[in-house]
Amino acid sequence: MYDLIILGGGPAGYNAAERAAHHGMKTLVCEERALGGVCLNEGCIPTKTLLYSAKIFDYANHGDKYGVTVEGAKIDHAKVVDRKDKVVKTLVSGVAAKMKGAGVTVVDGTAKITGKTANGFTVECKGETYEAAKLLICTGSEAVIPPIPGLRDSYEAGLAVTNREILDIRVLPKRVVVVGGGVIGLEMASYFNSVGSEVTVVEMLNKIAGPTEAEISSILEKNYTKKGVKFVLGAKVAAVNGKPGEGVVEYEKDGKIEKIDCDLVLVSTGRRARTKGIGLEEIGVQMNRGAVVTDDQCKTSVPGIWAAGDVNGKVMLAHTAYREGEVAVSDMMGIRDRVDYRSIPSVIYTNPEVGSVGETLESAKASGFDAAEVTLSLRYSGRYIAENEGGDGIVKVVYGKEHNQILGVHMIGNYASEIIFGAAAMVAKEQRVADVQKIVFPHPTVCEVIREAMFTI
Amino acid sequence: MYDLIILGGGPAGYNAAERAAHHGMKTLVCEERALGGVCLNEGCIPTKTLLYSAKIFDYANHGDKYGVTVEGAKIDHAKVVDRKDKVVKTLVSGVAAKMKGAGVTVVDGTAKITGKTANGFTVECKGETYEAAKLLICTGSEAVIPPIPGLRDSYEAGLAVTNREILDIRVLPKRVVVVGGGVIGLEMASYFNSVGSEVTVVEMLNKIAGPTEAEISSILEKNYTKKGVKFVLGAKVAAVNGKPGEGVVEYEKDGKIEKIDCDLVLVSTGRRARTKGIGLEEIGVQMNRGAVVTDDQCKTSVPGIWAAGDVNGKVMLAHTAYREGEVAVSDMMGIRDRVDYRSIPSVIYTNPEVGSVGETLESAKASGFDAAEVTLSLRYSGRYIAENEGGDGIVKVVYGKEHNQILGVHMIGNYASEIIFGAAAMVAKEQRVADVQKIVFPHPTVCEVIREAMFTI
Repeated sequence: MYDLIILGGGPAGYNAAERAAHHGMKTLVCEERALGGVCLNEGCIPTKTLLYSAKIFDYANHGDKYGVTVEGAKIDHAKVVDRKDKVVKTLVSGVAAKMKGAGVTVVDGTAKITGKTANGFTVECKGETYEAAKLLICTGSEAVIPPIPGLRDSYEAGLAVTNREILDIRVLPKRVVVVGGGVIGLEMASYFNSVGSEVTVVEMLNKIAGPTEAEISSILEKNYTKKGVKFVLGAKVAAVNGKPGEGVVEYEKDGKIEKIDCDLVLVSTGRRARTKGIGLEEIGVQMNRGAVVTDDQCKTSVPGIWAAGDVNGKVMLAHTAYREGEVAVSDMMGIRDRVDYRSIPSVIYTNPEVGSVGETLESAKASGFDAAEVTLSLRYSGRYIAENEGGDGIVKVVYGKEHNQILGVHMIGNYASEIIFGAAAMVAKEQRVADVQKIVFPHPTVCEVIREAMFTI
Repeated sequence: MYDLIILGGGPAGYNAAERAAHHGMKTLVCEERALGGVCLNEGCIPTKTLLYSAKIFDYANHGDKYGVTVEGAKIDHAKVVDRKDKVVKTLVSGVAAKMKGAGVTVVDGTAKITGKTANGFTVECKGETYEAAKLLICTGSEAVIPPIPGLRDSYEAGLAVTNREILDIRVLPKRVVVVGGGVIGLEMASYFNSVGSEVTVVEMLNKIAGPTEAEISSILEKNYTKKGVKFVLGAKVAAVNGKPGEGVVEYEKDGKIEKIDCDLVLVSTGRRARTKGIGLEEIGVQMNRGAVVTDDQCKTSVPGIWAAGDVNGKVMLAHTAYREGEVAVSDMMGIRDRVDYRSIPSVIYTNPEVGSVGETLESAKASGFDAAEVTLSLRYSGRYIAENEGGDGIVKVVYGKEHNQILGVHMIGNYASEIIFGAAAMVAKEQRVADVQKIVFPHPTVCEVIREAMFTI
């Protein structure tokens, strides 16, 4: 008998397990693939490993602007992938050690909720039946392969890949088509562009980077267009056919059908919650479009069952999953806590990076705020000028006009990934412009521009 | 007749001028060298420009760990210096444009306070007399050349240089001795080490990096020792003699005299406030060891005269100067404001970077706090592992045991420079451990380790 069984050992699951164990709960985690989930094994971490190698290669190729020249810069993609595997292995072992250290039991296998008992629930995993007072559903999400003619066959043939398979390709494709210009698509487009592939991004919307603030999305597009990535926006993919090295992507744009020859197709059109076949419907957990319905304490409709991470279909970011896992555990322990979905930052690890948190001017107005925004060039930062020849980064601060509270911060420019948490704190704590003006930011830094922006309000 | 005359157009002066003008004050700035002061012309910005080129060169030379190889990487130091000049010029023009845009008058010349009038004070600059109701002293600081035998002559001969001259050297010295292992010394040691000079740092104390937290200082020393910098600690320089290319530094350590042959000596043993000959004593401004005495509203002992920046001898960092300039202007306008000296961050732009804010465990205890600390390896961060092969960075959080309030954060590892402002906000706002636990940090980032540290308290 366990206090808690967690279905899925990704960011939501392993983090919740550790916190639960610290609260004294006897905890079991069932994981069918590898601890760390998509994030660690085929998402955040592997891509960042690849992108860092690409950044070093970019530096080598473009160092002349900064007085550094090299001959014959080469990137060994197979070695980059090997290193990625090593990094992932290190981190997965780290999670396993963490589980062990915290006294959490881990079972390798697919878990299924099999029933309700007087004391809680039964879960079957790898032929064994386990019982726990509480359950936490952290089964994550998977890439959607949309019903495009020929796509499923192209996927089987290895021409089309998802975020999972693309990370293990050992020979660089010459021509890559990325279907879907969201975060995953752009990060991989960035990598293949850096290492010398011809990259075309086909996106249904008229902008890239999904919900990213419009001006920032357009600056990102401009940067990558300059680097040679081709963007086909407002286009619907009509067919994907062929095999690796001999693929054809057809798309419809402005009523016309066009074709692109390519060697590899990355499908990054979205992800869906993994909720099938684990007994959720049978036990009565309310679902919405295939995702588990949760409140901001991560409760499901069934008392005793919580859900955290991508499986709720809300934000689908690893750090949201962490937080949701923590809040679910707090709630189990009777500790008052909730997920503040307004202040969750997001990052795109392109070069330049994009960091965002909170409302855009558009979303703020739609939410009923009497809002305004200021936009400042990152060229207000001496460090930015020192490190970014020809850089066109900006920061935007969205604020409420009545109370001057900070509603959102959006920036494009390097270090945004490491800066945006500070802005998330401002949004979370509903800080006022005058509060941030009184905080001393170190000089010379890029983050200073956020502070400077406060003085233009 | 002006509302405000500012003596000195460095970070304290130009920033205060802009804020004062925005409040409607008719403002004059007297600057004897170049707008932007030491920071912009011979400090923060030029060093960061050099260090960025060095970082690109390091990447090129050590990319093999990440799958990137190059042949014949070269750094063209003269080109790096040219670029530095260009960056400085861009930023100085930016400050000039800012002054013009704000309607601030700028006079090129040394200012001197000449007297008190019924309405305020008179100031002479470049043969003209100006009058203003209020004065702000922002004359900054200068490098100290300590009374070491032979040093003054070596300085005249060009063997010994300060932060000012070293930035304009166009031929790389083969052997550099850095006298003084504080921030300036270490940053320049880092540059010369990267570009291939033999570097020895001689420091009087038994640790490098001045007041930096002891364990972090020791990790930094270890990193640079590995890169080939030689540290001679607990050593007193006894003599500096010779000319460029033929220098000898003698030092005493453990009672023995040793000699180092070198081509260039950087003197970075400290800075002193520039307060001589500008009429401060005559008008009755209270001084302490050559610095202007100020309170935390930046008032001097003479009503109507404020001082901000290095001239008060307190923190001597550009961002402190900015803030002091702002507070001085707030105080002139009758707006309640004060400089919170507890929460001023500091950064060392070495590779790895160091970022610190607030109390160390030692200083917290000395200040009477019932304090404790937690230390976490940055290897808790997946991004850190992806980007730092063999990295040994850490973060330390110092907190009060009774209220769990965050008193200080200290870290060594890249991106620390851009992360530490968020920790400064935590210290400034006296946030509790539980407050930070509820903030969502993006994943995967290095800054996440700060949040993770909160869960070990």
